[in-house]
Amino acid sequence: MDSQISSPIPVIFDTDPGIDDALALALLACHPGFDLVAVTAVFGNGPVETTTRNARGLTALFGKDIPVAAGASGPLLDKRRRKDAAHVHGDDGLGGVAARLPEPARALDPRPAHQLICDMVNARPGEITLVAVGPFTNLALALAHDASIAGKVKRVVVMGGAFGLKGHAGNVSPVAEANIMADPEAADQVFTAAWPVTIVGLDVTQEAIMREADLAKLRGRGDGAGELLWLATRHYQQFYDARDGIGGIYAHDASAAAILLVPEAFTLRAGPVRVALEGIATGQTIQDWRNEHGTGTPWSGHPSQQVCVEVDAPRVLALFDEIF
Amino acid sequence: MDSQISSPIPVIFDTDPGIDDALALALLACHPGFDLVAVTAVFGNGPVETTTRNARGLTALFGKDIPVAAGASGPLLDKRRRKDAAHVHGDDGLGGVAARLPEPARALDPRPAHQLICDMVNARPGEITLVAVGPFTNLALALAHDASIAGKVKRVVVMGGAFGLKGHAGNVSPVAEANIMADPEAADQVFTAAWPVTIVGLDVTQEAIMREADLAKLRGRGDGAGELLWLATRHYQQFYDARDGIGGIYAHDASAAAILLVPEAFTLRAGPVRVALEGIATGQTIQDWRNEHGTGTPWSGHPSQQVCVEVDAPRVLALFDEIF
Repeated sequence: MDSQISSPIPVIFDTDPGIDDALALALLACHPGFDLVAVTAVFGNGPVETTTRNARGLTALFGKDIPVAAGASGPLLDKRRRKDAAHVHGDDGLGGVAARLPEPARALDPRPAHQLICDMVNARPGEITLVAVGPFTNLALALAHDASIAGKVKRVVVMGGAFGLKGHAGNVSPVAEANIMADPEAADQVFTAAWPVTIVGLDVTQEAIMREADLAKLRGRGDGAGELLWLATRHYQQFYDARDGIGGIYAHDASAAAILLVPEAFTLRAGPVRVALEGIATGQTIQDWRNEHGTGTPWSGHPSQQVCVEVDAPRVLALFDEIF
Repeated sequence: MDSQISSPIPVIFDTDPGIDDALALALLACHPGFDLVAVTAVFGNGPVETTTRNARGLTALFGKDIPVAAGASGPLLDKRRRKDAAHVHGDDGLGGVAARLPEPARALDPRPAHQLICDMVNARPGEITLVAVGPFTNLALALAHDASIAGKVKRVVVMGGAFGLKGHAGNVSPVAEANIMADPEAADQVFTAAWPVTIVGLDVTQEAIMREADLAKLRGRGDGAGELLWLATRHYQQFYDARDGIGGIYAHDASAAAILLVPEAFTLRAGPVRVALEGIATGQTIQDWRNEHGTGTPWSGHPSQQVCVEVDAPRVLALFDEIF
């Protein structure tokens, strides 16, 4: 098993495509550093029917014949509002290009996403890394279904949260990020479970800006896949150009994949992480990294997780030169 | 009334002395830029009986024959826990020097603090600045007693809160500062009232470090008052040296007084401020300064207040050379 260290990293990708999800999937499916073994879809950037269709079509586009399963259609608690992202990702979740995706040869996996995750993790204990970039409902359901997987997953890397660093606040409230807000209870369960979680939040993903010229470099590559990614990002870039004037897009979800290949590009901070579940801070991720408030706090006794606090963004973006 | 602009600033000081409160009171009582007209005490760094005794003794020490009134003994909602600060400020709230304060010549004002505030503000509409550096219960009670004072107070400056800037987090939880945590409902009412509030939080007060040498300069000055401040700060410095190793103390409360004299030393950020009242974020101050989350949020429709985001600390500390 030691040979795994330098072998491609076996990954299950839990996702709600989503345009930046598509870029992350391109890395996970096409970069030789990864061995993508399954994709699970969750509600988020669109209804789960939409994100599942997109996950299947994108997996086919990137030439991977692997299981794709549909997951949760909404958050653990019904009272939570759904993520509403059509203004960011388009009505089809992919900036209008979903209809141009290839028809998948393989049928939709019949299992619910959380079942597929548990089955694969149990089949390869200690090997699988979960990369999750949507609401964390599927992961919470997997833990509820079989708590033993926490000890069998190699690592969990999530895109989500905002820790208020470098002036980066929340994107759906002054303190909350969209993936967390879409299912705060699920996020809290995932962050307090006894598995090693690395959290790639807005603090670093909003530093990882793919400029229009970076995106244009994808065109004509990957047997049409690059062109489709370019087209999909047109809608996404329009949204961010209007809001933040960045002349490009944030590589939110791709950053979560990137940390597995170029860990040295990220600075991490250790400490338990909880999610605010009530009141005006709902959806905020709060890390007790200084551990100076004693025992009996909401953070006490929970596992220390890793939060990204700095990123060398060019290292992340350079990975896109290594695919297709 | 225009002559007020360059005249000493009429201030009511609401306080829970407290060692850094004593330094703030020294500025307010002794700096020629201020016209301190009353002091109101509130529970906080000690029980209200202790803080009232300290407020009276310190006011006498600094030679001011002005009304001192006792205020709230606990937060608006009983369920809130009291601020427990004996480990920071000593059992007597003043690092062991309370017994050496002079006996006040003037009797304790018979009115509760909030009544005194309302009376004085109504007597001088448009003139009085409230400087509040403890839990904000007295101010909330004053607003409840006579809502019209919001339109008659010139300005409210508070020491409290933490906005996560420059790595400064909360001091009683990862996100909450002690004055807010002691009565979050009161703080939320004060920040959402229709009066102009300037919030001087840990983000700037923890930049305003009085080193031991700065404090020693007070010795032998002010007819014994400087020596007593020096002695009081010994306990306080011990606490911060052990926790943060700063070789001095944070001039938390004095920073709130200072902004009135050297406003150019502070950078402000505008936007409505709310306080988290539930869950793990309770006591956190959250400003919606980007105003990009539309209407119908907890911040919508509330007055824009000013939060200090930067301080030129030497300008603040230099004010102590201008007293005694």
